[in-house]
Amino acid sequence: MPLRPIQIVPVPGLPEIATGDDLAALIAGALEEGELCVAGGDIFVVTQKIVSKAEGRIVQLGSVLPSERAKRWALKYEKDPRLIELVLREARRIVRMERGLIIAETRHGFVCANAGVDTSNAPAETAILLPEDPDRSAEALRQRLTASCAVEIGVIISDTFGRPWREGLVNVAIGVAGIAPLADYRATRDTSGRILQSTVLAVADELASAAELAMGKSENVPVVIVKGYSSGAVRGTGRDLIRPAERDLFR
Amino acid sequence: MPLRPIQIVPVPGLPEIATGDDLAALIAGALEEGELCVAGGDIFVVTQKIVSKAEGRIVQLGSVLPSERAKRWALKYEKDPRLIELVLREARRIVRMERGLIIAETRHGFVCANAGVDTSNAPAETAILLPEDPDRSAEALRQRLTASCAVEIGVIISDTFGRPWREGLVNVAIGVAGIAPLADYRATRDTSGRILQSTVLAVADELASAAELAMGKSENVPVVIVKGYSSGAVRGTGRDLIRPAERDLFR
Repeated sequence: MPLRPIQIVPVPGLPEIATGDDLAALIAGALEEGELCVAGGDIFVVTQKIVSKAEGRIVQLGSVLPSERAKRWALKYEKDPRLIELVLREARRIVRMERGLIIAETRHGFVCANAGVDTSNAPAETAILLPEDPDRSAEALRQRLTASCAVEIGVIISDTFGRPWREGLVNVAIGVAGIAPLADYRATRDTSGRILQSTVLAVADELASAAELAMGKSENVPVVIVKGYSSGAVRGTGRDLIRPAERDLFR
Repeated sequence: MPLRPIQIVPVPGLPEIATGDDLAALIAGALEEGELCVAGGDIFVVTQKIVSKAEGRIVQLGSVLPSERAKRWALKYEKDPRLIELVLREARRIVRMERGLIIAETRHGFVCANAGVDTSNAPAETAILLPEDPDRSAEALRQRLTASCAVEIGVIISDTFGRPWREGLVNVAIGVAGIAPLADYRATRDTSGRILQSTVLAVADELASAAELAMGKSENVPVVIVKGYSSGAVRGTGRDLIRPAERDLFR
C-alpha cells in the first residue's frame, strides 16, 4: 500500500504587507491567483513578520527613548540603544545578556534572541515586534480562511529561533490554531496505568520547519500550505509548546 | 510562475534491521518494491536507530557492570543502573543531571537526553547507542545510494532531540552527506565588507523535522525521501551543526 506523501506548497504572489491589511483576504486572493487548491486538513504556515506588519506591530525607532541601561549596553557592543531599549521592554526575563547578544523570555513565554524584536525586512528606522497574541492571530486567520476556502484548515504562525548547542536557526510555531501542536507517539504504561515512557513530538514546530524549506530562499513567500499531514484530533495552541518553568532544566 | 512544491515521500516496506544488515541494499530494494522514483538532488532522511542497529551499536544490558555512581543515581530516581552506566560512558560531559533526567554531551558533541542511549524500539534487555560517526554513516549511505539510484542524492541521519524552553521533541540531523546543512539567506555587508546581519538557517535540521512528519506515526517508516528541495552547493557535515563551545551561551 503506497503511503501518501506530504506536500509543502508555497503560496506566491502576496504583496508587501502593511499595517491594517486584511491578511486573510490577501492570502485568499493569492490562492485564487495561483490557482491553488485547498483541501480539508491543509495547514497554512504564515510567517510572524507579515502577521505583525498587518497588526501594526511596527515601532518607529525615532519614538523610542532609551534608558541608561540600554545606552550603556548599546555603547559597549556597538548596538543601537533604541533597539536595545525595545528589546528590554519586550522582555519579561533576561536569560542571557552577554557578548553582544540578548536572549530573553517574551511576555508570551518564548525564549528567543532580542525578545523577538527584529529589524530584518523592516522599513528603515523601524523595528517589528511579535504579535501581541500569536494564538489569537492564528485563530483569526483559521476562521477567515476556513470560511473563504469552505474547508476546515489549520494555521501556524512561524518564527525563526536559535537553539542552544546547535548552529543555525530553525522555524518554530509561535501561534497555532486548528491542529494538535504535540503528538504522543508511543505512550507505554505499566499494569497500574503509570506512563513509563512517552515520546511527545512537537509536530507544530516540525511543520513550521518544513514550511521554512519552501519559504527561505525567496523573500516573497511568507505563506506555505502543508498538505497531506494528518494532525491529531486534539487541537491546541502555541502556548502548549512553551515548557512550564517547573519542568525546565534550563531556566 | 508557479513555485514547485517540496514532497516528503515515505519509503515503506523496510524489514526490521539487525546487526550486519546492508542498509543501503535494503533501502534500494524498498525503493524498487515501492516503485519509487529517485531524482538527482533528492535527500534521504534515515533514522539513527536503523543505522545504529545495522552497525551493531546494540548493547546487552546484562553485560554492563554499573559503577557506584550509576547505582546511587539509579536508586534515587528508580532507574535501571545498567542504563545509567551506559549513559555516563557515552557522555563526554554532563550538562544537567537532576529530576531523574540526564542531559549530556556525547563524544560527537551532541547535547541530548541520555547521551543518545535509547531503549525504545530496542530488543528486550538491550539499549541502542548512537552511531560512532554519523557523518561517516551518512557518507557511506550516500555513496551506495548514489550508485544504486544512478543520480546524486543527499543523506541525513536523523535523531529525536529535546530542546530547552519548549515542550516536545523534534527531529534533527546528526549526520549529513551531500548537502549543505546550513543556508545563509541574507548576509548584508557594510562598505568595508563586514557582515552586519546574517540569517543562517539550519536547513538539515529542518529537513530532518520535515521528514519526521512522514515517519512519526508508523514504526515502519524509518526512511523518507525529500524531493524538490534545492540544497546549496557547498556541502557539509553534521558536525557543522554543532555550535563550538566558545560561541555557545548555554554551556
